[in-house]
Amino acid sequence: MNYSFSEIIEKKKHSIELSAEEIKWLINSYVKNNVTDYQMAAFAMAVYFNGMTKAETLALTQSYVESGYVYDVSEVTGLKADKHSTGGVGDKTSLVYSPLVASYGVKVCKLSGRGLGVTGGTIDKLESCKGWTSELSKEKFIKTINEVGMSITGQSDDIVPADKKMYALRDVTGTVDSIPLIAASIMSKKLVIDSDSLILDVKVGAGAFMKNIDIAEKLANEMITIGHGYNRKVSILLTDMQKPLGKAIGNAIEVKEAWDTLNNNGPEDLKEVVCTAAGLTLTDLGIFDKLEDAISDCYKKLETGECAHFLQEFVEAQGGNFELIKNYEQNFTTKNKIEVLAEENGYIISQDAETIGLLSMELGAGRKTKEDLIDFSAGIYLNKKTGDVVKTGDVVLTFYTNFDINNDWIEKAKKSFTISSQNEKQQNIIKIIR
Amino acid sequence: MNYSFSEIIEKKKHSIELSAEEIKWLINSYVKNNVTDYQMAAFAMAVYFNGMTKAETLALTQSYVESGYVYDVSEVTGLKADKHSTGGVGDKTSLVYSPLVASYGVKVCKLSGRGLGVTGGTIDKLESCKGWTSELSKEKFIKTINEVGMSITGQSDDIVPADKKMYALRDVTGTVDSIPLIAASIMSKKLVIDSDSLILDVKVGAGAFMKNIDIAEKLANEMITIGHGYNRKVSILLTDMQKPLGKAIGNAIEVKEAWDTLNNNGPEDLKEVVCTAAGLTLTDLGIFDKLEDAISDCYKKLETGECAHFLQEFVEAQGGNFELIKNYEQNFTTKNKIEVLAEENGYIISQDAETIGLLSMELGAGRKTKEDLIDFSAGIYLNKKTGDVVKTGDVVLTFYTNFDINNDWIEKAKKSFTISSQNEKQQNIIKIIR
Repeated sequence: MNYSFSEIIEKKKHSIELSAEEIKWLINSYVKNNVTDYQMAAFAMAVYFNGMTKAETLALTQSYVESGYVYDVSEVTGLKADKHSTGGVGDKTSLVYSPLVASYGVKVCKLSGRGLGVTGGTIDKLESCKGWTSELSKEKFIKTINEVGMSITGQSDDIVPADKKMYALRDVTGTVDSIPLIAASIMSKKLVIDSDSLILDVKVGAGAFMKNIDIAEKLANEMITIGHGYNRKVSILLTDMQKPLGKAIGNAIEVKEAWDTLNNNGPEDLKEVVCTAAGLTLTDLGIFDKLEDAISDCYKKLETGECAHFLQEFVEAQGGNFELIKNYEQNFTTKNKIEVLAEENGYIISQDAETIGLLSMELGAGRKTKEDLIDFSAGIYLNKKTGDVVKTGDVVLTFYTNFDINNDWIEKAKKSFTISSQNEKQQNIIKIIR
Repeated sequence: MNYSFSEIIEKKKHSIELSAEEIKWLINSYVKNNVTDYQMAAFAMAVYFNGMTKAETLALTQSYVESGYVYDVSEVTGLKADKHSTGGVGDKTSLVYSPLVASYGVKVCKLSGRGLGVTGGTIDKLESCKGWTSELSKEKFIKTINEVGMSITGQSDDIVPADKKMYALRDVTGTVDSIPLIAASIMSKKLVIDSDSLILDVKVGAGAFMKNIDIAEKLANEMITIGHGYNRKVSILLTDMQKPLGKAIGNAIEVKEAWDTLNNNGPEDLKEVVCTAAGLTLTDLGIFDKLEDAISDCYKKLETGECAHFLQEFVEAQGGNFELIKNYEQNFTTKNKIEVLAEENGYIISQDAETIGLLSMELGAGRKTKEDLIDFSAGIYLNKKTGDVVKTGDVVLTFYTNFDINNDWIEKAKKSFTISSQNEKQQNIIKIIR
């Protein structure tokens, strides 16, 4: 069918629902350059104001998925699981979740991206294991999953080209912050690979893209609806990103913390998020009936350390030197190490994830532009976490960097946390939506 | 000053007022291609949804005006008047208004455009006087005004280039129907030439761009505010365009009707609009104190025919053969002439301007695309006007065309008017806003 852009834009301006065919024609025409960037920018802005119905959002997602390569994972044996996070400061959840879930015989088939922001993405973090690569052939990806129980590969250029083109346009036209456009973008990248359970960890707070719970919940519900449109089981966690997750923020330092967590030495907040996500997967797959049973079984596995080996095997299967992480202190030294101290007694009641994330980028752990190189050794360690008691002179956090120390960073670091005489209750899991 | 597009678009999305400097930076950057088409399309769509404050609309207009050439009319002797219509079917008001106003010693300095639509614009209509040109040097324009009392010249390419670029973009991105964008576009083209009185005739109804009175009033008020920002006296007429204006619709046929009207033989609705517009000019300029006195004096001038010669002198001063119009019947014959008859007795209570306008275009009187040639002889004559009594078999309207007659046209023409046993009161002037 042939539609006209002017009819479509008038409908969207007046909140008249577009048919799936109209949306697919629009996106298809955009990919083929028959609808221009300026027309699509006007459409995206109209969507920013008028939103999309659930049917429209599903059709948009389908048009993204259908624009490129779709993975065939039919040769993976057993149940398949996937987990995605909207991204936050110190978020190494996938690196603990995947080995943990794999230890139940579930196959974790995961596509991942690089990070543009405060720290690297999962792929950047894993590249601190020298030799590790995300650039796998499709055969090697399936083979690794079947042999190790898990694999993480990079999003190849040929998946969701429509979303890539849209995202680049939205980024420069003020049309990023639209729930249906975000939902379609995230979900299309998950739907190109089949899974029996998909967990979405939506981060909420200062250090996340979603600054408030209402908007995060809207996004979660949109994504669940899209998942149902694909007959896909989707469970969503809203988790706190007002404060960083865990104690380590950086790249190698986060892989190290993941490894420690798998060996009964992880921070409580990270363990809670990991075990809840894994518990959701295990109940979605019918391996456990009750979520609380699944979660407590996951905690036990972390205590025994019995699933840690999956992480090492996976890194090595994809060419990485995992010994570097096991001997972290020798291998990831930095020129400078600065300790930021508490200047009063009390409880740490807040640690600002946004400030701490931006600082870790300044130290070399993240990218300001696509071309920036990541310093795997750089990062921040939170010696004290929100809720901890501190005394004057205690080390609250430590900078690791190969750059010269900038006094401004230390000033910012001091302002990044608040000490109070009254402790406040901390929340890691805000809500579960399934 | 240097601003950023992303800050500007975020402000507009959240209805935070932009400063005049920000708007001027935006438009200036767009003209220089430092802001892209897709960014401006997103901005225009955000304006469609969130509107603009009066100060923003004024700044936008100023940025358009300042983007190009501004006419110097300081050498025009005496008071200067200008009149603009938003365009409608059968609208030859300017061709009667200008000679009438000139007869009071007021200088009419008018820029005009070609029409893209149901009939030609003022320039197209005048070109039916063979040899007449709108392409005057700036000196010739001033000289014609001073010697004849009036001149109409084409908008040269170097005026309001920012608006031209914006308009072309709006046309293909669904962002035409935004009151502040329309107001700035219209007013910028008027403000590049100084005048002591500016009359804006905003057409309302099926045959006009503005389909309803509320929106037309909003546009009128925006334009008055912009005028005040330039210390310009602006009076606005809202006039009816549910039905065509006058009896003639086409090009030469409209110049002929203008000439007849100047010689005491014009249709009542046209005379009312012309005399009201001229009356507003004459009171705005202080030539009359009371509007009703000015209007009744204008009616008298049309009765005596004393101002008709201004039209002929103006056409001849710009190279046109006005004898063609004076001997209209010999010079503008067409291959086909079809009369559409009344099929019952009663009063004509409606004539649909939109349908009649589109028919006149089909007959050859207008342009579907920029490249189309206009047939000066083609058009429609309304033998009966809304409010007239008709009997079965009376000619209601007549087609003049050099194309073969299409039966579909006749069917449409029959449906373009309604006959009823009860007459209805007709309104030509809806409202005066000053």
